Amino acid sequence: MTAQRADARRNYARILAVAEEEVAAHGADASLEQIARTAGVGSATVRRHFPNRRALLEAVFSERIQALCTRAEGLADADDPRAALLDWLNALTAYATSARGMADALLQDRTADEDHVNACSARLSGAVDPLLHRAARAGAVTSDVTTVDLISLVTGIALATERHPDPAAEANRLLALTVRGVSPQG
Amino acid sequence: MTAQRADARRNYARILAVAEEEVAAHGADASLEQIARTAGVGSATVRRHFPNRRALLEAVFSERIQALCTRAEGLADADDPRAALLDWLNALTAYATSARGMADALLQDRTADEDHVNACSARLSGAVDPLLHRAARAGAVTSDVTTVDLISLVTGIALATERHPDPAAEANRLLALTVRGVSPQG
Repeated sequence: MTAQRADARRNYARILAVAEEEVAAHGADASLEQIARTAGVGSATVRRHFPNRRALLEAVFSERIQALCTRAEGLADADDPRAALLDWLNALTAYATSARGMADALLQDRTADEDHVNACSARLSGAVDPLLHRAARAGAVTSDVTTVDLISLVTGIALATERHPDPAAEANRLLALTVRGVSPQG
Repeated sequence: MTAQRADARRNYARILAVAEEEVAAHGADASLEQIARTAGVGSATVRRHFPNRRALLEAVFSERIQALCTRAEGLADADDPRAALLDWLNALTAYATSARGMADALLQDRTADEDHVNACSARLSGAVDPLLHRAARAGAVTSDVTTVDLISLVTGIALATERHPDPAAEANRLLALTVRGVSPQG
């Protein structure tokens, strides 16, 4: 590794560590300028690593996303396909509720650019699609539900409960309602 | 009316009109300072009328909340209690999705002050409780669902679909899933 590349890698690691603290404190509103100041680098350096806020959030939440993907893979052969899917939805809800800014990282943003794929959401979808399809084949989910729908519903619940005194408990309650249905009999 | 009171009332009307424009443009992030500048009054005057952002949002959305209350009252004697409740939920979803900042106005904020009641949510609850209870008596809703739960779920859907290319259609889709349930058979 050249000295220049080693330097760039240290810069990236420092910026990411600062970004994690800023996002924990301010959620998705974390300021790129503040991150640059605290990391002791120029704004241009931050932008070279993270061209926009979404790229930054994706990097900050990358490990949590990976943990959720690993969880999904571990549940792929569980005995009860419905329980496996609900287990994973509970894990997603716990993560989305506990980490400020994660709900924003998960939100689809298809307005700016048709080619832009939300990396967090796409990684989760790839890992969870098998769980969902298995539950669907077992007749355990409503037809035409997609993984993206599930992520959107959980994200919404996380955002709606953010200012609740006990966000985790309230989010679990709303998730249970969403799973059972508010009024399932048509 | 004294000249002083007439003056205060004109100030209030002007500040509210400016606030409506700012909230339409910036949602719940509308700046109280910018509203004061545009209205040509001091920040202290704005704060006297609206002590905090929530009070401002409640005033801005007061007419829409009233329309939703009136809609609920009009549905109270509808033939089909389930259809009446779903009709109202669709109306709430349409309002929450179309107006930037309205989802924030509806969010419960019970962290700061136990005595503080979210005025928007409380007004809606009062109007919708009879619809929900009638649907529950007809066996058409899952037990232990409250009006506040319904408002939270719709608010979450509105927030999660904000950046979707077609928020209204996507919100309707997610509402339908929430009503039927993602996996109703336990």
